[in-house]
Amino acid sequence: MAAAFAPSTTLRLRPYSTLRCLSFYPKNLTKPYPVFPPLIRRSPISPRRLFSSVISGALHSGERTKSELAEKQMGEMGSKVGEFRKKLKIVDVKGGPNEGLDRVGQMIVVAGWVRTLRAQSSVTFIEVNDGSCLSNMQCVMTSDAEGYDQVKSGLITTGASIWIQGNVVPSQGSKQKVELKVNKIVLVGKSDPSYPIQKKRVSREFLRTKAHLRPRTNTFGAVARVRNALAYATHKFFQENGFIWISSPIITASDCEGAGEQFCVTTLIPSSREAAESPVDAIPKTKDGLIDWSQDFFEKPAFLTVSGQLNAETYATALSNVYTFGPTFRAENSNTSRHLAEFWMIEPELAFADLKDDMACATAYLQYVVRYILDNCKEDMDFFNTWIEKGIIDRLSTVAERDFVQLSYTDAIELLIKAKKKFEFPVKWGCDLQSEHERYLTEEAFGGCPVIVSDYPKEIKAFYMRQNDDGRTVAAMDMLVPQIGELIGGSQREERLEYLEGRLDELKLNRDSYWWYLDLRHYGSVPHAGFGLGFERLVQFATGVENIRDAIPFPRTPGSVEF
Amino acid sequence: MAAAFAPSTTLRLRPYSTLRCLSFYPKNLTKPYPVFPPLIRRSPISPRRLFSSVISGALHSGERTKSELAEKQMGEMGSKVGEFRKKLKIVDVKGGPNEGLDRVGQMIVVAGWVRTLRAQSSVTFIEVNDGSCLSNMQCVMTSDAEGYDQVKSGLITTGASIWIQGNVVPSQGSKQKVELKVNKIVLVGKSDPSYPIQKKRVSREFLRTKAHLRPRTNTFGAVARVRNALAYATHKFFQENGFIWISSPIITASDCEGAGEQFCVTTLIPSSREAAESPVDAIPKTKDGLIDWSQDFFEKPAFLTVSGQLNAETYATALSNVYTFGPTFRAENSNTSRHLAEFWMIEPELAFADLKDDMACATAYLQYVVRYILDNCKEDMDFFNTWIEKGIIDRLSTVAERDFVQLSYTDAIELLIKAKKKFEFPVKWGCDLQSEHERYLTEEAFGGCPVIVSDYPKEIKAFYMRQNDDGRTVAAMDMLVPQIGELIGGSQREERLEYLEGRLDELKLNRDSYWWYLDLRHYGSVPHAGFGLGFERLVQFATGVENIRDAIPFPRTPGSVEF
Repeated sequence: MAAAFAPSTTLRLRPYSTLRCLSFYPKNLTKPYPVFPPLIRRSPISPRRLFSSVISGALHSGERTKSELAEKQMGEMGSKVGEFRKKLKIVDVKGGPNEGLDRVGQMIVVAGWVRTLRAQSSVTFIEVNDGSCLSNMQCVMTSDAEGYDQVKSGLITTGASIWIQGNVVPSQGSKQKVELKVNKIVLVGKSDPSYPIQKKRVSREFLRTKAHLRPRTNTFGAVARVRNALAYATHKFFQENGFIWISSPIITASDCEGAGEQFCVTTLIPSSREAAESPVDAIPKTKDGLIDWSQDFFEKPAFLTVSGQLNAETYATALSNVYTFGPTFRAENSNTSRHLAEFWMIEPELAFADLKDDMACATAYLQYVVRYILDNCKEDMDFFNTWIEKGIIDRLSTVAERDFVQLSYTDAIELLIKAKKKFEFPVKWGCDLQSEHERYLTEEAFGGCPVIVSDYPKEIKAFYMRQNDDGRTVAAMDMLVPQIGELIGGSQREERLEYLEGRLDELKLNRDSYWWYLDLRHYGSVPHAGFGLGFERLVQFATGVENIRDAIPFPRTPGSVEF
Repeated sequence: MAAAFAPSTTLRLRPYSTLRCLSFYPKNLTKPYPVFPPLIRRSPISPRRLFSSVISGALHSGERTKSELAEKQMGEMGSKVGEFRKKLKIVDVKGGPNEGLDRVGQMIVVAGWVRTLRAQSSVTFIEVNDGSCLSNMQCVMTSDAEGYDQVKSGLITTGASIWIQGNVVPSQGSKQKVELKVNKIVLVGKSDPSYPIQKKRVSREFLRTKAHLRPRTNTFGAVARVRNALAYATHKFFQENGFIWISSPIITASDCEGAGEQFCVTTLIPSSREAAESPVDAIPKTKDGLIDWSQDFFEKPAFLTVSGQLNAETYATALSNVYTFGPTFRAENSNTSRHLAEFWMIEPELAFADLKDDMACATAYLQYVVRYILDNCKEDMDFFNTWIEKGIIDRLSTVAERDFVQLSYTDAIELLIKAKKKFEFPVKWGCDLQSEHERYLTEEAFGGCPVIVSDYPKEIKAFYMRQNDDGRTVAAMDMLVPQIGELIGGSQREERLEYLEGRLDELKLNRDSYWWYLDLRHYGSVPHAGFGLGFERLVQFATGVENIRDAIPFPRTPGSVEF
């Protein structure tokens, strides 16, 4: 029974000064992993103390009999789970208003990966990064530090993971306010000399082949943090405005746009390890030689979703305001810097709302998330401003502060025709706007201000968009932003049953496949509107990374599904 | 040019008392959609006023030349996008501390769907719901209200959407503190008499066939709101503790568990409309009659992910703490109330952490989200407590307040063997715990307290779990909770290269397929740990709904991919 008690500890981290054992390796089988010294080894806590707190915890539940049972059982077997505390990270030290000066004199522990190591005659400088922020912690070590032999023997190299205990002291250098005077260093995991991310700069193309290691670089660490901030700001914006997050289905039998290039999802082909050598003949077929879908998992053809919008509409017409935030897919064979086969989409849907409400919501949303990263990711944004896109902070500040412009498609066409600029694709009423047109409007005609173009010809837009009274255009809108072109596309949805059915017929789409979508117009139809935003486009817009493959951890493109 | 100006408005909602036009229908083609009366029709605002604010907005951007250009352009073409304001919802009226009494005397607008309508001799009661909360707004109408004829003629029925303007007055009834004295009612969309969700209670089985309408019921509205709150609380917990959200890939060529039943993703079968009649012979094959994967989109077999964990580990060993929250898939042919083919998973991963940290994190997480819904979803939780699972609030309060119990698998087996209870599946060391064992431990042995069982035999756990010093067990943990059994499964990961490679070999898994996963152990390996939690199980746990198909908007199960 004693064995059950031994590993129980409370694991509390006293703020700023406590040493904490992360794990220990009694067998010490692999050389570089040290047995942590007795000083920081866990000391088991007396079972009596633990149980008393468990008992007092149990008492205020009110269920006396059950608690007594639990308590008795706990006395015989089991222990209490330790408390969870956020560990001190480099951002907690250096991210404050005075960049760590308030912690001078404190003894702290830093654990992370070696970015660089410079051994000088009497001192060694190690830059350690833990990914919590762009900044490394500069650790300064002299030969009297415990563990110095590991440095001297060359075991600690770029990419190695280390654990350092030291005192925060004012830095002599100009790059940072504080640094760490090392008391003790422990090599946690060595780095093989083949480590591909050495100090010399490596290309982003090369790093795409190392997607598992690229978050250890400045650029991809910063992209990951800003991407995270954009995602959280998205949830915050919608939650604060009373929207309900809903998960639209990923596997679906319907095709939202009526013309999407979709991936098929099937179990007719055996799973992973056997798939590579699977004969075509093994696929079940009907008497006529057709694929026998009745034997598939879903008993009919199923696909990866291209949009959650139609599903979101079902929830908007019950809960008023909803949004999706999930992955969507296009099996388009586009090998460009703007396309992914798998990307995340944000699709809000507003009931009792028209196109004006939709534009207002899209504008407020974009300004909110841009303001959020400017306020909360200053260090990373400065990095992008210096190294990725000069002027990006100004560009984003403009978006956050300026009023957006709105004009009709018809006016936009007129404006483009009058423009002195020569376009590759000629402009006339009825054509879809190309990237060059979109960028001209937002970057040149309106001087860097986002532009919302509305009321497009119905022929170039989807069946579900609400027809305008002119009979030629629909209540659609696209938001154009500098650098990207179209960032957001939205519309008011056709809530009038006759119009919607008419449009399905015109486009030769099968009414029966849309029975549930039409039902929303049979039962308490309401004017409603929404928009869609490709999250990776937003990440590009907000970080300046040119290739969309660098805006998502593991990009999927034609021929590329590694990791 | 005038056409561009006409629709521009500011659309501001003055708090509490302003009427707002949601949309207007000048053509009035479909009878039930009214032309809103002049009172609430938008009045176009003078273009001059609009432009002056655009100009002043442009001035403080600092880019004078660009701004001047934009300004000039705006003078000729384009207008300003209206401001986005959260609309007043029923929850804003009735959700406050005094349930709406502070708004008595205010004139407000409510827009939503009719739940019930009772016409008495002199007054008519209409219960309206807008999905913002469980409560309806009771609207009381006499024959002098504008639009009363629509009520009298029977056009307004259950399921119809309506727009009501009225005064908040103290309610005569005991069910609510306030009600709405109707000034004016507008039928927005009528409801066909075939509306399947009438007042009589309908079964949850039936409602699964109406997944597009079921969020309009009390139960599914409440599930959607609590599901949303659990998702948001999940993000809040991890963000507040310094975790970075990362999106693990959905389409993947690797198989995390080494034994998952996966869905194949392919473009070798033509997309949606043609798929149903596609001949097997049309699938490209090699000379040997095998499927010719080189012609597929990814040029090799690709599958839907069963877990994002391995990918999350790559980011954890760069950024320290990360979490995923995205869809995962199992092509298991299980038609049970506990399995979905498509479900959402939350997978945190902590670097420089061991199994104890992992348990502490899982415990803190679960207590946080449970506390969050008890605090923020009171009305919905009361509903579940009354109608879905009596005592659920007590059960969840226990989880939020009590210390969790931790014991080893070996001790758990001993405890089960000693138990007086007769189990269907016999217990002995080495067997996997069945649901009946798990529920006995948490519900009976420890009186409703969540139990974490750790250190399972390595044979019943995945290859990546860290081997304990006894050579027989691994540093795995499962969290068991009342009503559900296993809710969370986690482990410390094997960070020692030799052990990991040895385990892959033992299980005859191909080392080459895991090259990037092994790289994490080549370059700065660190002790790390994480866990996975099926989000729909959490929704079941938190709402008491028995069937997991009722815990997600559009469930995917064998043979079922509708909507």
